[in-house]
Amino acid sequence: MTVQPSSRTAELVMVGSELLRGVYADTNGCFLARSFAAEGIAVTRTTVVRDVEDEIAEVISRALSRVSLVVVCGGLGPTIDDLTREAIVQATGIPLALHQEIVDAIRQRFASRGLTVSENNLRQAYVPECGGFFPNPNGTAPGLYFESGSSLIVALPGPPRELIPMFHDTLLPFLRQRGFVGAAMPSRLFRLAGIPESLADQRLQPLIANDPGLRVSILARPNLVDITLFHEDAKRLGEIGDAVDAEFGMAIYTHEQESLEQVIGDRCRERGLTLGLAESCTGGLIGGAITNVPGSSAYLVGGIVCYSNKIKSGLLSVSEQTLADHGAVSEETAKALSEGVRKTLGCDIGLSVTGIAGPDGATPEKPLGLVFMACSSKTSTRVERHQFIGTRETIRAWATQRALDLLRRFLCQAAPSDQF
Amino acid sequence: MTVQPSSRTAELVMVGSELLRGVYADTNGCFLARSFAAEGIAVTRTTVVRDVEDEIAEVISRALSRVSLVVVCGGLGPTIDDLTREAIVQATGIPLALHQEIVDAIRQRFASRGLTVSENNLRQAYVPECGGFFPNPNGTAPGLYFESGSSLIVALPGPPRELIPMFHDTLLPFLRQRGFVGAAMPSRLFRLAGIPESLADQRLQPLIANDPGLRVSILARPNLVDITLFHEDAKRLGEIGDAVDAEFGMAIYTHEQESLEQVIGDRCRERGLTLGLAESCTGGLIGGAITNVPGSSAYLVGGIVCYSNKIKSGLLSVSEQTLADHGAVSEETAKALSEGVRKTLGCDIGLSVTGIAGPDGATPEKPLGLVFMACSSKTSTRVERHQFIGTRETIRAWATQRALDLLRRFLCQAAPSDQF
Repeated sequence: MTVQPSSRTAELVMVGSELLRGVYADTNGCFLARSFAAEGIAVTRTTVVRDVEDEIAEVISRALSRVSLVVVCGGLGPTIDDLTREAIVQATGIPLALHQEIVDAIRQRFASRGLTVSENNLRQAYVPECGGFFPNPNGTAPGLYFESGSSLIVALPGPPRELIPMFHDTLLPFLRQRGFVGAAMPSRLFRLAGIPESLADQRLQPLIANDPGLRVSILARPNLVDITLFHEDAKRLGEIGDAVDAEFGMAIYTHEQESLEQVIGDRCRERGLTLGLAESCTGGLIGGAITNVPGSSAYLVGGIVCYSNKIKSGLLSVSEQTLADHGAVSEETAKALSEGVRKTLGCDIGLSVTGIAGPDGATPEKPLGLVFMACSSKTSTRVERHQFIGTRETIRAWATQRALDLLRRFLCQAAPSDQF
Repeated sequence: MTVQPSSRTAELVMVGSELLRGVYADTNGCFLARSFAAEGIAVTRTTVVRDVEDEIAEVISRALSRVSLVVVCGGLGPTIDDLTREAIVQATGIPLALHQEIVDAIRQRFASRGLTVSENNLRQAYVPECGGFFPNPNGTAPGLYFESGSSLIVALPGPPRELIPMFHDTLLPFLRQRGFVGAAMPSRLFRLAGIPESLADQRLQPLIANDPGLRVSILARPNLVDITLFHEDAKRLGEIGDAVDAEFGMAIYTHEQESLEQVIGDRCRERGLTLGLAESCTGGLIGGAITNVPGSSAYLVGGIVCYSNKIKSGLLSVSEQTLADHGAVSEETAKALSEGVRKTLGCDIGLSVTGIAGPDGATPEKPLGLVFMACSSKTSTRVERHQFIGTRETIRAWATQRALDLLRRFLCQAAPSDQF
């Protein structure tokens, strides 16, 4: 089956009544649309449909009349309202058959947790007779594909932690092999930290104007902006990319698909440095991020969530005088915390955060969103004051990412002769 | 026009090619679905469609064949690719007419900024001959409504800062006056922890079978399952709900829209207890969750991320002997950590987690995903052994939620006479 460039379109079908109640925002649609776009497949329609078999089947049938690739997300679970398998059977006429390899995998998975397999669980072991499955190392429901004439219907599990790895590890190579995905357009990624999206966009515009062959994607999360440039002409892409590098300099933490905490890990390993954290308003979120990285125990000694002043003074050597004179949320306390945690945990670098995440605790002098953070080594300390805006959740997310970026800059900018 | 309860359904149509490129996540769909659900209107389908007039018109026509309320978002701007107005005209046959009041408002808005009005801008001044408009104090595009027989098509501007106020200030009162908004269907929520989704479903089925009036929604996240029952008959809903309560007992952590960490906070406050955390493989995620709750400083003294053995023994009093005999990932170490953190931080309850999140560090005796957790007070300690499956991220997410649930059960089941 080969697919012409002009037919490189797809439709998405998101299954789940809960998506239509707005309890949780769907993130899969955005992820898939962006990821397909990067591979040269245009998503031309997305339909969110209830857990009603006939409706799912109808949406899939109509999509198949317009495009040759339909990706269905969700509804592959073991419960009675997981109807995606049956709906695709109804839409395509392709029957399912029990697949012993999957049955065995499910039994093994359950046995290792001391559970027995129910009839319902075995619904996940059915595979299309004309098609196949994608293994799911992160859950029980495998992905499925149905081949109907020159069309392909792919069903992916709904949880993002299952869907995203399956997309990258099996679906994309599969689509490439089948000719649905062509050679990716040359692209260059820039991951920025510490610059607001609107400012990044403003500084980017003069560099990318007047080139009709250039496609740009911008994706923002708290404190982080990803810019991807696409251009058929690799030389032209290189020229524009160099200009972007020059414009943003140190704000670019990587050109690869890696996180800020991975970059921090690499810098620590390279220089043989160990880390310790003193978190107040972020409550453990920085530790949670740094330990997302496999092998982070090689450089993270530990952390102290110093929510109470008793811990700040008792365990982290912030003097009672500093707390009394300047308060827990102050430049002085942040500095003392970052130095204290180095001593308490016996590590090279200390990172601290203290702030007012709200909704309570703000004063006219110390408003909601005021956050101090400090990074220190044996010979130097850097302190930053930030004023974030938004809910408790937003302020904490920004503070976490901003502190990670402070740590990254501290690690990158320190001269090799600096003592740690 | 009065609308019967059974017809209190709506479909959403989100217009915009940019939504299908995944550059930005759509938040309007989630907002509208949630807001309509709260008002007793079920959104039964959402379609995201490109800026192509015929496609928008086709989607609207099909939606009108299924429901009597269709809400279209976006595509009301002044530019050539804003095609929502024309598409609704095509779908309904209702023509537009220039509305002098809107023309004047646009001219005034532009004049106040020293700008002149273009032909394109005046496209926003057209209003359906059979219908009307909603003023937009936050932008130039008014909302529109088209009355077609007993059906209503509403068009809202795409920017959330325009759409959200218009929804609350004009659309909702309008729908209420027209009888589209009535009372919500009675519902009952059960939030479960510690039971896998498939097992929860299996135990639920006998209680809910054979009642055609009952609607059920099940939503699972790591270690957490939400069950919502809906029934027009409140008495019948009460009976079924009582049976569900009896079946799941202590596994139900709440019947409200609150998180496990909020429930933990409430129990701590009620009993005047303070908490301390010792996190190894979760690296701060438990602290991050507990401090999501505003005011958590009232009961969370702090936490220690004890990633290295040095911290486990030095700061948390785990004996070198225990670490040498049983290893860092063991029942004995988990117990010692939960007791050690109580002493180090001077708190009533200690919670600890230690495990192998991978991908490295597993042995035949201690496989990937093996996690021990312990909760202790002055007089008692409870230890649990878990075997989780999946990636590093999944194992850590499960360990976090499972430890929070251990803490909840410990707080709830301890007799009031227990000493803390």
